[in-house]
Amino acid sequence: MANMNFNTDFVPLTVDPDKIYDYSFAIIKEEMGEHSFTDEQWLVVRRVIHASADFELGRSMIFTDDAIEAGIQSILVGRHVVADVQMIESGSGRKRFQKHGGDLHCYIADEDVSIEAKKLGTTRAIISMQKATQLQEGGIYAIGNAPTALLELIRLIKEGLAKPDLIIGMPVGFVSAAESKAELAILEGIPFITNVGRKGGSTVTVAALNAISIMADERAKEAK
Amino acid sequence: MANMNFNTDFVPLTVDPDKIYDYSFAIIKEEMGEHSFTDEQWLVVRRVIHASADFELGRSMIFTDDAIEAGIQSILVGRHVVADVQMIESGSGRKRFQKHGGDLHCYIADEDVSIEAKKLGTTRAIISMQKATQLQEGGIYAIGNAPTALLELIRLIKEGLAKPDLIIGMPVGFVSAAESKAELAILEGIPFITNVGRKGGSTVTVAALNAISIMADERAKEAK
Repeated sequence: MANMNFNTDFVPLTVDPDKIYDYSFAIIKEEMGEHSFTDEQWLVVRRVIHASADFELGRSMIFTDDAIEAGIQSILVGRHVVADVQMIESGSGRKRFQKHGGDLHCYIADEDVSIEAKKLGTTRAIISMQKATQLQEGGIYAIGNAPTALLELIRLIKEGLAKPDLIIGMPVGFVSAAESKAELAILEGIPFITNVGRKGGSTVTVAALNAISIMADERAKEAK
Repeated sequence: MANMNFNTDFVPLTVDPDKIYDYSFAIIKEEMGEHSFTDEQWLVVRRVIHASADFELGRSMIFTDDAIEAGIQSILVGRHVVADVQMIESGSGRKRFQKHGGDLHCYIADEDVSIEAKKLGTTRAIISMQKATQLQEGGIYAIGNAPTALLELIRLIKEGLAKPDLIIGMPVGFVSAAESKAELAILEGIPFITNVGRKGGSTVTVAALNAISIMADERAKEAK
């Protein structure tokens, strides 16, 4: 590695992973300026901005007052996390949750889900939410890709068929994404984290989920 | 599913996956308006916009004239694809490339990569690029997360140690991301797809890679 000779006029280049995070967060804090997020919410928002380089997206985030605490507690008591797409499963990693007794699941690629979706002419995302809510109570739902997954989860909640501990709902796109998040933003009785508008996606959903799981880790450490 | 009763005032809700794509692409085309991308480049750009809901990011994309054709040919002759992070591996899927005789790899979680990175006090991303270029000739490098991976790949190319068929380089972030892409944008002799600025990420890199692999599929069908 001695031969590395990078051209970086703008920022001090570092290859130390921890330093890259620290330096990124310092830039984000400076450029963000004023905001009205709580200290704990900011730990989520800055990670979303870090993953997207998009302050507009960060500023568009909405939290229920109980969202972060509900997420932390859900992880600490070993409840399971459901992701709508496999990118979230691989981006966040199952180990984060397994160490607290839980796990991370994504059902969208399951054969039974695929068969059922084809039969009904609907999305695998919708069927995967039905499967998830039948397999587990509570838990965190991290939805970053499919608006139909989020809309279906909201429908299941309203029908009394699901009661997540926390929904992180940040699907991206042009068809129903903003609308699905607007539906979530007026949902009562369930803690949620979402954002306003079309933007979102798997990477920012992973960022929000990881921020919560890091807070859970710290809480577990403090308790020792 | 008969009970679904979604509130969608703004857009005609559909749960047919193909229709969701078609409708999204129609919105994107309309809102994008004038641009100077070629027809084939547009197939990549619109998929990046679809994955990010970010026209600014789409407009910031840069292609070498030979980039798309080089990517298509690389897939069709069964060359392998390397991703910097596992989110790209799971988001794109190995089957896309296996059916043409290639495969998709991500080395960042390999134990030998982790050990070497720790020993050298550097990023696993850098070591994973060294491993990739030692294991394969040519191929497509899809880098969506780690600027250090892209900078290392450029270094290896300049030292004559790597010669990818195509680089899709769209890392995101505040430390070295924009700079790494600026380095790529002036690289000579290697086809590339990149974008200007801090934005990028795994989801948009997957989108660009998938657009190319779909074109390769269509080319293969035509040849039959």
